[in-house]
Amino acid sequence: MEILQNEELCLESNKIKEYDKKYNLHSWSAQKKLNPLVITKAEGIYFWDSTGKKYFDMSSQLVNLNIGHGNKKVINAIKEQADKMPFIGPGYAVDVRSKLAAKVIEKAPENMGKVFFTLGGADSNENAIKIAKMATGKFKIFSRYRSYHGASFGAANLTGEPRRYTCEPGIPGFVKFFDPYIYRESIRFESEEEACEYYLGKLKEQLIYEGTETVAAIFLETVTGSNGVIIPPKGYLQGIRKLCDEFGIVMVCDEVMAGWGRTGEWFACNNWDVEPDIITFAKGVTCGYVPMGGVIVSKKIGEYFDDNVLMCGLTYNAHPLGCAAGCATIEVYEEENLIENSKKMGVVLGEKLEQIKQKHASVGDVRYIGLFSAVELVKDKNTREALVPYGRDPEGIMGKIVGMLKEKGFSTYSHENCIMVAPPLIIKKEELEEAMDILDKVLDFVDEYIEK
Amino acid sequence: MEILQNEELCLESNKIKEYDKKYNLHSWSAQKKLNPLVITKAEGIYFWDSTGKKYFDMSSQLVNLNIGHGNKKVINAIKEQADKMPFIGPGYAVDVRSKLAAKVIEKAPENMGKVFFTLGGADSNENAIKIAKMATGKFKIFSRYRSYHGASFGAANLTGEPRRYTCEPGIPGFVKFFDPYIYRESIRFESEEEACEYYLGKLKEQLIYEGTETVAAIFLETVTGSNGVIIPPKGYLQGIRKLCDEFGIVMVCDEVMAGWGRTGEWFACNNWDVEPDIITFAKGVTCGYVPMGGVIVSKKIGEYFDDNVLMCGLTYNAHPLGCAAGCATIEVYEEENLIENSKKMGVVLGEKLEQIKQKHASVGDVRYIGLFSAVELVKDKNTREALVPYGRDPEGIMGKIVGMLKEKGFSTYSHENCIMVAPPLIIKKEELEEAMDILDKVLDFVDEYIEK
Repeated sequence: MEILQNEELCLESNKIKEYDKKYNLHSWSAQKKLNPLVITKAEGIYFWDSTGKKYFDMSSQLVNLNIGHGNKKVINAIKEQADKMPFIGPGYAVDVRSKLAAKVIEKAPENMGKVFFTLGGADSNENAIKIAKMATGKFKIFSRYRSYHGASFGAANLTGEPRRYTCEPGIPGFVKFFDPYIYRESIRFESEEEACEYYLGKLKEQLIYEGTETVAAIFLETVTGSNGVIIPPKGYLQGIRKLCDEFGIVMVCDEVMAGWGRTGEWFACNNWDVEPDIITFAKGVTCGYVPMGGVIVSKKIGEYFDDNVLMCGLTYNAHPLGCAAGCATIEVYEEENLIENSKKMGVVLGEKLEQIKQKHASVGDVRYIGLFSAVELVKDKNTREALVPYGRDPEGIMGKIVGMLKEKGFSTYSHENCIMVAPPLIIKKEELEEAMDILDKVLDFVDEYIEK
Repeated sequence: MEILQNEELCLESNKIKEYDKKYNLHSWSAQKKLNPLVITKAEGIYFWDSTGKKYFDMSSQLVNLNIGHGNKKVINAIKEQADKMPFIGPGYAVDVRSKLAAKVIEKAPENMGKVFFTLGGADSNENAIKIAKMATGKFKIFSRYRSYHGASFGAANLTGEPRRYTCEPGIPGFVKFFDPYIYRESIRFESEEEACEYYLGKLKEQLIYEGTETVAAIFLETVTGSNGVIIPPKGYLQGIRKLCDEFGIVMVCDEVMAGWGRTGEWFACNNWDVEPDIITFAKGVTCGYVPMGGVIVSKKIGEYFDDNVLMCGLTYNAHPLGCAAGCATIEVYEEENLIENSKKMGVVLGEKLEQIKQKHASVGDVRYIGLFSAVELVKDKNTREALVPYGRDPEGIMGKIVGMLKEKGFSTYSHENCIMVAPPLIIKKEELEEAMDILDKVLDFVDEYIEK
């Protein structure tokens, strides 16, 4: 088949779109309806389409571009490593592989010992499940509803929302429990402490019914991401830690989205001074410049594998190009004080979100920590009825809102009835305010929609 | 924790090894025993350790470096794309993404329509399972013993050897059947045709017992890789195709190892003129310079997703850096006539392997196609008793053989009682002969070992 007679053709915007639609399968979509934007440039917190239109990247693409687009330091590290040695098998020691491993452990909580590198978040969770099973000799895995851990079979079976359904019938021993989604809880709690007590009590009850001696791990997104930036109430993570200690269960914090400065700390668990046994990460470690993820294990788990075979592996484990990008990315966080900026700009973002909540009838809740936030849309502030029913959007209203935002230059995505706001950590106050004004305006339209 | 006081330290070979052992978890190993070589340079079919010792890369690392190390064209493509746009989310159309998709379909069998890009082989198989389930509405998945499809839960449940055990209890509906491993079959067949008839007959029987109306897909490595380069007998793949057509089952060829020229054809299925419904690939598409894999689907399956949502996704789907590397890699195959060279050098390799088999008492079988081959070691040529029992190596003899090969500059790996020989497709006749002489010598030692 001779498709590409002329190389030049492919560079033209119409051809790019035509070939994209003809040959590419796009994720999470029916293909016929797609009309993908052709992107030709990206820099800092912005990207541009082929018509020259500029967008604020207010979701950091898929909440991965923490350092923004086009960072020269990381690009140069990739180029240098490409010249030197783009690939060598996982069995060997190489400078960037050793260096990134050391850097990751340097940034991780004190109890952490070693890292197993992967290519992305799903991968990391897949390996964390296996590690927890091996290290405990147990097989049941607890995770939460309204969580997302990836789309491959193991990760999807952890996932507690509809994106797991294609990976069913499910893997035996995967058990779901409820997350502390206080805003949508049928009970009205007096305090965060009371909520904590309730959720941890129910979890303990469930662990006992499932048989604590069979439970290998409890997985949780430290801060639930895609499913609406659900932030744990005070004491919740400590309570999980305590349950895990009581029953010999491995506590796994999925920090694929929340890690690497997103919440204003290197890892989200630092916000509550909790030391999990395993942290899974991806996205922010290289910001997606090169695919990279990993599983950080405690010293104790690390030691288990001194004498026991780690039954995990992938061809691109600790890929040198990814390691080089990772080392440079961590240096960018340090040199540009991005963790601090995330915290500082997070305050500005929080204030703006609270104003928006006050002002708009359609905004039921806003949740934020660092530069990680969601706007939850409702039909009615009092009843808290979601703008769209769970798992459906019969009138396509969420798509319409995201489209209007994009049209005005504010690029992000939605999930259920929530709008994600998670700009690159390099964003400045004026830029953040300018972008948030766009969101403010579009919410006027949503207010009108619910009043109809 | 301040680990890296001095950047320079990390560049020193001892430090590299120390940090590697201290902070990195290595795949498929107990960590204490490891003594990883520090690799400092790699070029063409060779790489060098920190003592300056040079190795023939006779397994192309993990059978991925088809174009060899340090290819300038691919490196330049990576550098160019890094400068231009290392990452953009999967929802957008970009030049390299469109171009690679078109190129992949150009090289694939005529019936193929679209591609979904992933990051590696396991990933590709995970998504192929989901696609087959969605497209058929059925849930059972057939795959073979002595196959390897990856280590994540879905891929590991396809896998028919011990590397799947940590992903058990298994996913409901995953069924294993026997592969046509004629050399180790209890029945002695008169011809390949007779073997074919036997294996296909047993498979048909098994499909009927499982309920053909519940079977979504049959997965097979077109040529089984890690488990000993098991080549299908004449008519076998056509027979699988016929069974799939008869019962509305999706035929999936896993070409993660065998694809992209390894067998002397673009895809291994070309050797038998068979058109599967799905091909999964990885390794050779970028040769690992940047992690990349994918699922090629037939036009018919592609059309199914025009109106039905493709429930697959990953942050690094169709990663621009990987796409750029993929485009360049395919051009290298074309410009350097590597598919042809694989076939041509495959003849040289085959002749050398037959000589080795003749000469050595410890060589039970040699199997080869293109530059993809394995040497199967036995205690006795007549009884065919394997050099090591299945799944074990009580005296560590296989490790010793691989170590001796490496010591003499022939780098490869073993699996069960087989030694993999799969050099980069750029290898020249003299180089191949020089390397094979090393293998020849080491096999003298194995002959002595079995005679003891």
